[in-house]
Amino acid sequence: MRIYDLSLTVSPSMPVWPGDPAITLGRVAKIEEGAAANVSRMELGVHTGTHVDAPFHFIRDGSTVESLSLKILIGRAYVVHLNDDIGLIMPEHLERARIPPRTRRVLIRTRNSKQWTKDYRTFDKEYVGIDVSAADYLVKRGVKLVGVDYLSVAPFKDATPTHISLLKAGVVIVEGLNLSQVPKGRYNFFCLPLKLDKSDGAPARAVLMGV
Amino acid sequence: MRIYDLSLTVSPSMPVWPGDPAITLGRVAKIEEGAAANVSRMELGVHTGTHVDAPFHFIRDGSTVESLSLKILIGRAYVVHLNDDIGLIMPEHLERARIPPRTRRVLIRTRNSKQWTKDYRTFDKEYVGIDVSAADYLVKRGVKLVGVDYLSVAPFKDATPTHISLLKAGVVIVEGLNLSQVPKGRYNFFCLPLKLDKSDGAPARAVLMGV
Repeated sequence: MRIYDLSLTVSPSMPVWPGDPAITLGRVAKIEEGAAANVSRMELGVHTGTHVDAPFHFIRDGSTVESLSLKILIGRAYVVHLNDDIGLIMPEHLERARIPPRTRRVLIRTRNSKQWTKDYRTFDKEYVGIDVSAADYLVKRGVKLVGVDYLSVAPFKDATPTHISLLKAGVVIVEGLNLSQVPKGRYNFFCLPLKLDKSDGAPARAVLMGV
Repeated sequence: MRIYDLSLTVSPSMPVWPGDPAITLGRVAKIEEGAAANVSRMELGVHTGTHVDAPFHFIRDGSTVESLSLKILIGRAYVVHLNDDIGLIMPEHLERARIPPRTRRVLIRTRNSKQWTKDYRTFDKEYVGIDVSAADYLVKRGVKLVGVDYLSVAPFKDATPTHISLLKAGVVIVEGLNLSQVPKGRYNFFCLPLKLDKSDGAPARAVLMGV
Protein backbone atom coordinates (compact mmCIF):
# COMPACT_ATOMS: atom_id res chain seq x y z
CA MET A 1 0.00 0.00 0.00
CA ARG A 2 1.29 3.43 -0.94
CA ILE A 3 2.19 5.79 1.89
CA TYR A 4 2.27 9.51 1.09
CA ASP A 5 4.67 11.40 3.33
CA LEU A 6 3.20 14.91 3.67
CA SER A 7 5.94 16.15 5.99
CA LEU A 8 8.47 18.85 5.17
CA THR A 9 12.11 18.06 5.86
CA VAL A 10 13.21 20.16 8.84
CA SER A 11 16.44 22.03 8.10
CA PRO A 12 17.91 25.44 8.93
CA SER A 13 17.30 26.54 5.32
CA MET A 14 13.52 26.07 5.35
CA PRO A 15 11.30 29.17 5.60
CA VAL A 16 9.89 30.08 9.02
CA TRP A 17 7.14 32.50 10.01
CA PRO A 18 8.59 36.05 10.23
CA GLY A 19 9.70 36.67 13.81
CA ASP A 20 9.57 32.99 14.82
CA PRO A 21 12.72 31.39 16.26
CA ALA A 22 15.42 30.31 13.80
CA ILE A 23 16.15 26.61 13.25
CA THR A 24 19.42 25.10 14.46
CA LEU A 25 20.27 21.47 13.81
CA GLY A 26 23.75 20.11 14.34
CA ARG A 27 25.91 17.48 15.93
CA VAL A 28 27.22 17.93 19.47
CA ALA A 29 29.15 14.61 19.39
CA LYS A 30 30.95 13.21 16.35
CA ILE A 31 32.37 9.73 15.74
CA GLU A 32 35.14 11.21 13.59
CA GLU A 33 36.27 13.26 16.58
CA GLY A 34 36.45 10.23 18.86
CA ALA A 35 32.93 10.09 20.30
CA ALA A 36 31.23 6.69 20.66
CA ALA A 37 28.22 7.96 18.71
CA ASN A 38 26.97 10.83 16.58
CA VAL A 39 24.50 12.91 18.60
CA SER A 40 22.60 15.88 17.23
CA ARG A 41 20.73 18.67 18.88
CA MET A 42 17.82 20.76 17.58
CA GLU A 43 16.52 24.22 18.34
CA LEU A 44 13.34 25.50 16.75
CA GLY A 45 9.96 27.13 17.18
CA VAL A 46 7.14 24.65 17.73
CA HIS A 47 5.32 26.02 14.63
CA THR A 48 8.16 25.01 12.32
CA GLY A 49 7.59 22.99 9.13
CA THR A 50 4.76 20.47 9.29
CA HIS A 51 3.09 21.11 12.65
CA VAL A 52 -0.16 21.34 14.59
CA ASP A 53 -1.70 24.29 16.44
CA ALA A 54 -3.34 23.76 19.83
CA PRO A 55 -6.12 26.08 21.07
CA PHE A 56 -3.60 27.74 23.42
CA HIS A 57 -1.82 29.18 20.36
CA PHE A 58 -4.52 31.85 20.02
CA ILE A 59 -6.77 31.35 23.06
CA ARG A 60 -5.48 32.50 26.45
CA ASP A 61 -6.96 29.61 28.44
CA GLY A 62 -7.07 27.14 25.57
CA SER A 63 -5.88 23.54 25.87
CA THR A 64 -2.31 22.65 25.00
CA VAL A 65 -0.83 20.31 22.42
CA GLU A 66 -0.16 17.20 24.54
CA SER A 67 -3.91 16.93 25.19
CA LEU A 68 -5.04 16.95 21.55
CA SER A 69 -7.08 13.82 20.88
CA LEU A 70 -5.39 11.10 18.84
CA LYS A 71 -8.90 10.17 17.69
CA ILE A 72 -8.98 13.43 15.77
CA LEU A 73 -5.35 13.28 14.62
CA ILE A 74 -5.87 9.79 13.18
CA GLY A 75 -8.66 8.71 10.83
CA ARG A 76 -10.43 9.15 7.50
CA ALA A 77 -9.63 12.35 5.65
CA TYR A 78 -10.69 13.95 2.40
CA VAL A 79 -8.16 15.74 0.18
CA VAL A 80 -9.53 18.71 -1.75
CA HIS A 81 -7.77 20.30 -4.74
CA LEU A 82 -8.30 24.02 -5.30
CA ASN A 83 -7.43 25.89 -8.50
CA ASP A 84 -4.14 27.75 -8.75
CA ASP A 85 -5.92 31.09 -9.31
CA ILE A 86 -7.47 31.05 -5.82
CA GLY A 87 -5.57 33.44 -3.53
CA LEU A 88 -7.92 33.42 -0.51
CA ILE A 89 -10.10 30.43 0.27
CA MET A 90 -13.81 31.40 0.50
CA PRO A 91 -16.85 29.23 1.37
CA GLU A 92 -17.85 28.93 -2.29
CA HIS A 93 -14.51 27.33 -3.18
CA LEU A 94 -15.12 24.66 -0.58
CA GLU A 95 -18.74 24.23 -1.70
CA ARG A 96 -17.54 23.60 -5.25
CA ALA A 97 -15.01 21.01 -4.01
CA ARG A 98 -17.92 18.73 -3.04
CA ILE A 99 -16.56 17.50 0.27
CA PRO A 100 -18.53 14.32 1.08
CA PRO A 101 -21.13 14.51 3.89
CA ARG A 102 -19.87 13.63 7.40
CA THR A 103 -16.24 14.37 6.48
CA ARG A 104 -14.39 15.08 9.74
CA ARG A 105 -10.91 15.79 8.35
CA VAL A 106 -10.22 18.01 5.34
CA LEU A 107 -6.81 18.58 3.76
CA ILE A 108 -6.75 21.44 1.27
CA ARG A 109 -4.27 21.47 -1.60
CA THR A 110 -3.65 24.84 -3.22
CA ARG A 111 -0.89 26.34 -5.34
CA ASN A 112 1.10 26.50 -2.06
CA SER A 113 2.07 22.85 -2.44
CA LYS A 114 4.15 23.64 -5.52
CA GLN A 115 6.58 25.51 -3.28
CA TRP A 116 7.52 22.26 -1.56
CA THR A 117 8.49 20.59 -4.84
CA LYS A 118 11.25 23.16 -5.32
CA ASP A 119 14.02 24.35 -3.05
CA TYR A 120 12.15 27.36 -1.65
CA ARG A 121 13.98 29.06 1.17
CA THR A 122 12.22 32.37 1.68
CA PHE A 123 8.93 32.94 3.43
CA ASP A 124 6.17 33.80 0.93
CA LYS A 125 3.67 36.34 2.30
CA GLU A 126 1.45 35.79 -0.74
CA TYR A 127 0.57 32.21 0.25
CA VAL A 128 -3.05 31.02 -0.01
CA GLY A 129 -4.92 31.06 3.33
CA ILE A 130 -8.46 30.38 4.54
CA ASP A 131 -10.77 33.36 5.04
CA VAL A 132 -12.63 33.42 8.37
CA SER A 133 -15.94 32.88 6.52
CA ALA A 134 -14.60 29.64 5.05
CA ALA A 135 -13.30 28.58 8.48
CA ASP A 136 -16.80 29.18 9.89
CA TYR A 137 -18.19 27.11 7.00
CA LEU A 138 -15.94 24.15 7.89
CA VAL A 139 -16.89 24.39 11.57
CA LYS A 140 -20.58 24.44 10.64
CA ARG A 141 -20.09 21.30 8.55
CA GLY A 142 -18.73 19.48 11.60
CA VAL A 143 -15.12 19.28 10.42
CA LYS A 144 -12.72 18.46 13.31
CA LEU A 145 -9.35 18.73 11.56
CA VAL A 146 -8.20 21.10 8.83
CA GLY A 147 -4.87 20.64 7.06
CA VAL A 148 -3.25 23.24 4.81
CA ASP A 149 -0.19 23.36 2.60
CA TYR A 150 1.52 26.50 3.86
CA LEU A 151 2.81 27.49 7.28
CA SER A 152 -0.47 29.07 8.41
CA VAL A 153 -4.13 28.27 7.96
CA ALA A 154 -4.97 32.00 7.81
CA PRO A 155 -4.01 34.68 5.29
CA PHE A 156 -0.80 36.51 6.25
CA LYS A 157 -2.41 39.91 6.74
CA ASP A 158 -5.22 38.70 8.98
CA ALA A 159 -4.07 35.66 10.95
CA THR A 160 -6.19 35.88 14.09
CA PRO A 161 -9.89 35.45 13.05
CA THR A 162 -9.42 32.22 11.07
CA HIS A 163 -7.37 30.63 13.86
CA ILE A 164 -9.87 31.67 16.54
CA SER A 165 -12.85 30.39 14.53
CA LEU A 166 -11.29 26.94 14.19
CA LEU A 167 -9.54 26.61 17.57
CA LYS A 168 -12.57 27.84 19.53
CA ALA A 169 -14.60 25.08 17.90
CA GLY A 170 -12.05 22.43 18.87
CA VAL A 171 -10.81 21.97 15.32
CA VAL A 172 -7.22 20.69 15.11
CA ILE A 173 -5.15 22.76 12.67
CA VAL A 174 -2.35 21.06 10.72
CA GLU A 175 -0.05 23.39 8.81
CA GLY A 176 2.90 22.94 6.47
CA LEU A 177 1.67 19.85 4.61
CA ASN A 178 3.21 18.96 1.27
CA LEU A 179 0.18 17.82 -0.72
CA SER A 180 1.85 18.13 -4.14
CA GLN A 181 1.87 14.39 -4.86
CA VAL A 182 -1.59 13.53 -3.54
CA PRO A 183 -4.64 13.02 -5.82
CA LYS A 184 -7.93 14.31 -4.43
CA GLY A 185 -10.15 11.84 -2.60
CA ARG A 186 -10.46 9.74 0.55
CA TYR A 187 -7.52 8.44 2.61
CA ASN A 188 -6.50 7.32 6.06
CA PHE A 189 -4.64 10.19 7.71
CA PHE A 190 -2.07 9.86 10.48
CA CYS A 191 -0.78 13.07 12.01
CA LEU A 192 1.48 12.46 15.00
CA PRO A 193 2.79 15.62 16.68
CA LEU A 194 5.46 15.53 19.38
CA LYS A 195 3.88 15.34 22.83
CA LEU A 196 5.31 18.62 24.11
CA ASP A 197 4.28 19.51 27.65
CA LYS A 198 1.90 22.52 27.81
CA SER A 199 2.85 23.79 24.37
CA ASP A 200 0.82 25.94 21.95
CA GLY A 201 1.83 23.68 19.07
CA ALA A 202 4.22 20.94 18.03
CA PRO A 203 6.12 19.76 14.97
CA ALA A 204 4.56 16.62 13.50
CA ARG A 205 5.04 13.88 10.96
CA ALA A 206 1.96 13.40 8.79
CA VAL A 207 1.17 10.65 6.29
CA LEU A 208 -1.72 9.48 4.16
CA MET A 209 -2.47 5.90 3.23
CA GLY A 210 -5.06 4.47 0.86
CA VAL A 211 -8.44 3.48 2.31
CA MET B 1 -10.97 1.32 18.39
CA ARG B 2 -8.54 1.86 21.24
CA ILE B 3 -5.37 3.82 20.52
CA TYR B 4 -2.42 3.29 22.87
CA ASP B 5 -0.18 6.34 23.04
CA LEU B 6 3.32 4.99 23.74
CA SER B 7 4.97 8.42 23.72
CA LEU B 8 6.59 10.13 26.68
CA THR B 9 5.59 13.72 27.35
CA VAL B 10 8.55 15.96 26.49
CA SER B 11 9.36 18.35 29.33
CA PRO B 12 12.50 19.82 30.88
CA SER B 13 12.02 17.54 33.92
CA MET B 14 12.24 14.23 32.05
CA PRO B 15 15.45 12.20 32.32
CA VAL B 16 17.97 12.47 29.47
CA TRP B 17 21.00 10.36 28.62
CA PRO B 18 23.99 11.53 30.72
CA GLY B 19 25.89 14.13 28.72
CA ASP B 20 23.11 14.69 26.19
CA PRO B 21 21.79 18.22 25.69
CA ALA B 22 19.33 19.56 28.27
CA ILE B 23 15.69 20.18 27.31
CA THR B 24 14.34 23.71 27.10
CA LEU B 25 10.70 24.39 26.30
CA GLY B 26 9.17 27.80 26.77
CA ARG B 27 7.15 30.60 25.26
CA VAL B 28 8.87 33.36 23.29
CA ALA B 29 5.58 35.23 22.66
CA LYS B 30 2.72 35.54 25.16
CA ILE B 31 -0.84 36.71 24.64
CA GLU B 32 -0.92 38.07 28.20
CA GLU B 33 2.01 40.33 27.31
CA GLY B 34 0.26 41.72 24.24
CA ALA B 35 1.36 39.27 21.54
CA ALA B 36 -1.22 38.14 18.95
CA ALA B 37 -0.46 34.50 19.75
CA ASN B 38 1.37 32.24 22.16
CA VAL B 39 4.49 30.86 20.48
CA SER B 40 6.85 28.36 22.08
CA ARG B 41 10.36 27.28 21.27
CA MET B 42 12.10 23.99 21.99
CA GLU B 43 15.72 22.99 22.43
CA LEU B 44 16.67 19.35 22.86
CA GLY B 45 18.87 16.46 21.82
CA VAL B 46 17.38 14.37 19.02
CA HIS B 47 17.55 11.25 21.25
CA THR B 48 15.19 12.76 23.83
CA GLY B 49 12.12 10.91 25.13
CA THR B 50 10.41 8.64 22.61
CA HIS B 51 12.71 8.66 19.58
CA VAL B 52 14.29 6.65 16.77
CA ASP B 53 17.95 5.96 16.03
CA ALA B 54 19.22 6.09 12.45
CA PRO B 55 22.27 4.04 11.36
CA PHE B 56 24.36 7.27 11.38
CA HIS B 57 24.00 7.36 15.19
CA PHE B 58 26.69 4.65 15.51
CA ILE B 59 27.93 4.07 11.95
CA ARG B 60 30.21 6.69 10.42
CA ASP B 61 28.75 6.48 6.90
CA GLY B 62 25.31 5.21 7.94
CA SER B 63 22.08 6.62 6.57
CA THR B 64 20.31 9.44 8.37
CA VAL B 65 16.88 9.71 9.93
CA GLU B 66 14.94 11.45 7.16
CA SER B 67 15.59 8.45 4.90
CA LEU B 68 14.22 5.76 7.24
CA SER B 69 11.49 3.85 5.44
CA LEU B 70 7.92 4.58 6.51
CA LYS B 71 7.18 1.00 5.44
CA ILE B 72 9.26 -0.16 8.41
CA LEU B 73 8.02 2.54 10.80
CA ILE B 74 4.38 1.62 10.09
CA GLY B 75 2.89 -1.87 10.22
CA ARG B 76 2.11 -4.99 12.23
CA ALA B 77 4.03 -5.32 15.48
CA TYR B 78 4.21 -7.86 18.28
CA VAL B 79 4.42 -6.73 21.91
CA VAL B 80 6.46 -9.01 24.19
CA HIS B 81 6.28 -8.93 28.01
CA LEU B 82 9.43 -9.88 29.92
CA ASN B 83 9.56 -10.68 33.63
CA ASP B 84 10.55 -8.01 36.10
CA ASP B 85 13.57 -10.00 37.27
CA ILE B 86 15.30 -9.78 33.90
CA GLY B 87 18.09 -7.19 34.02
CA LEU B 88 19.76 -7.88 30.67
CA ILE B 89 17.82 -9.29 27.73
CA MET B 90 19.38 -12.52 26.41
CA PRO B 91 18.34 -14.69 23.41
CA GLU B 92 16.66 -17.25 25.71
CA HIS B 93 14.31 -14.59 27.09
CA LEU B 94 13.16 -13.78 23.58
CA GLU B 95 12.90 -17.48 22.68
CA ARG B 96 10.62 -18.01 25.66
CA ALA B 97 8.44 -15.05 24.61
CA ARG B 98 7.31 -17.02 21.55
CA ILE B 99 7.42 -14.24 19.02
CA PRO B 100 5.28 -15.42 16.07
CA PRO B 101 7.10 -16.44 12.86
CA ARG B 102 7.61 -13.67 10.29
CA THR B 103 7.26 -10.92 12.91
CA ARG B 104 8.98 -7.83 11.51
CA ARG B 105 8.45 -5.41 14.41
CA VAL B 106 8.99 -6.32 18.06
CA LEU B 107 8.26 -4.06 21.02
CA ILE B 108 9.71 -5.33 24.30
CA ARG B 109 8.09 -4.45 27.62
CA THR B 110 10.29 -4.85 30.69
CA ARG B 111 10.23 -3.47 34.22
CA ASN B 112 11.48 -0.20 32.63
CA SER B 113 7.91 0.70 31.64
CA LYS B 114 6.94 1.09 35.31
CA GLN B 115 9.16 4.15 35.49
CA TRP B 116 6.86 5.96 33.07
CA THR B 117 3.81 5.42 35.27
CA LYS B 118 5.41 7.50 38.03
CA ASP B 119 7.02 10.90 38.01
CA TYR B 120 10.60 9.72 37.52
CA ARG B 121 13.00 12.54 36.90
CA THR B 122 16.46 11.04 37.25
CA PHE B 123 18.26 8.89 34.72
CA ASP B 124 18.38 5.22 35.83
CA LYS B 125 21.65 3.51 34.84
CA GLU B 126 20.20 0.16 35.99
CA TYR B 127 17.61 0.05 33.22
CA VAL B 128 17.04 -3.18 31.27
CA GLY B 129 18.84 -3.31 27.90
CA ILE B 130 19.34 -5.86 25.11
CA ASP B 131 22.58 -7.86 25.09
CA VAL B 132 24.37 -7.98 21.73
CA SER B 133 23.64 -11.73 21.48
CA ALA B 134 19.90 -11.02 21.72
CA ALA B 135 20.24 -8.22 19.15
CA ASP B 136 21.96 -10.71 16.82
CA TYR B 137 19.10 -13.15 17.50
CA LEU B 138 16.50 -10.58 16.43
CA VAL B 139 18.46 -9.74 13.27
CA LYS B 140 18.71 -13.44 12.41
CA ARG B 141 14.95 -13.78 12.81
CA GLY B 142 14.42 -11.07 10.21
CA VAL B 143 13.13 -8.40 12.58
CA LYS B 144 13.27 -4.93 11.00
CA LEU B 145 12.19 -2.74 13.93
CA VAL B 146 12.91 -3.10 17.65
CA GLY B 147 11.19 -0.94 20.25
CA VAL B 148 12.27 -0.69 23.90
CA ASP B 149 10.91 1.01 26.99
CA TYR B 150 13.96 2.91 28.20
CA LEU B 151 16.10 5.55 26.57
CA SER B 152 18.53 3.08 25.00
CA VAL B 153 18.23 -0.33 23.38
CA ALA B 154 21.60 -1.36 24.85
CA PRO B 155 22.74 -1.83 28.44
CA PHE B 156 24.25 1.33 29.94
CA LYS B 157 27.74 -0.05 30.40
CA ASP B 158 28.10 -1.44 26.89
CA ALA B 159 26.06 0.65 24.49
CA THR B 160 27.95 0.20 21.23
CA PRO B 161 27.75 -3.52 20.24
CA THR B 162 23.94 -3.82 20.49
CA HIS B 163 23.40 -0.63 18.49
CA ILE B 164 25.90 -1.67 15.81
CA SER B 165 24.38 -5.16 15.48
CA LEU B 166 20.91 -3.73 14.84
CA LEU B 167 21.80 -0.62 12.83
CA LYS B 168 24.25 -2.46 10.55
CA ALA B 169 21.42 -4.87 9.67
CA GLY B 170 19.07 -2.00 8.80
CA VAL B 171 16.92 -2.49 11.90
CA VAL B 172 15.12 0.66 13.01
CA ILE B 173 15.55 1.27 16.76
CA VAL B 174 12.74 2.95 18.69
CA GLU B 175 13.60 3.98 22.25
CA GLY B 176 11.69 5.53 25.13
CA LEU B 177 8.35 3.77 24.62
CA ASN B 178 5.88 3.65 27.48
CA LEU B 179 4.49 0.12 27.19
CA SER B 180 3.02 0.01 30.71
CA GLN B 181 -0.61 -0.08 29.54
CA VAL B 182 -0.23 -2.49 26.64
CA PRO B 183 -1.14 -6.21 26.84
CA LYS B 184 1.13 -8.57 24.91
CA GLY B 185 0.09 -9.55 21.42
CA ARG B 186 -0.37 -8.24 17.87
CA TYR B 187 -1.10 -4.62 16.96
CA ASN B 188 -0.76 -2.07 14.22
CA PHE B 189 2.18 0.18 15.06
CA PHE B 190 2.67 3.74 13.87
CA CYS B 191 5.96 5.41 14.70
CA LEU B 192 6.33 8.82 13.09
CA PRO B 193 9.65 10.56 13.80
CA LEU B 194 10.29 14.16 12.83
CA LYS B 195 11.87 14.38 9.38
CA LEU B 196 15.10 16.03 10.51
CA ASP B 197 17.59 16.69 7.74
CA LYS B 198 20.72 14.47 7.95
CA SER B 199 20.21 13.66 11.62
CA ASP B 200 21.39 10.62 13.60
CA GLY B 201 17.97 10.32 15.25
CA ALA B 202 14.70 12.13 15.82
CA PRO B 203 12.02 12.49 18.48
CA ALA B 204 8.87 10.63 17.50
CA ARG B 205 5.25 10.03 18.42
CA ALA B 206 4.41 6.34 18.54
CA VAL B 207 1.01 4.65 18.87
CA LEU B 208 -0.46 1.18 18.74
CA MET B 209 -3.92 0.29 17.49
CA GLY B 210 -5.78 -3.02 17.55
CA VAL B 211 -5.48 -5.29 14.52
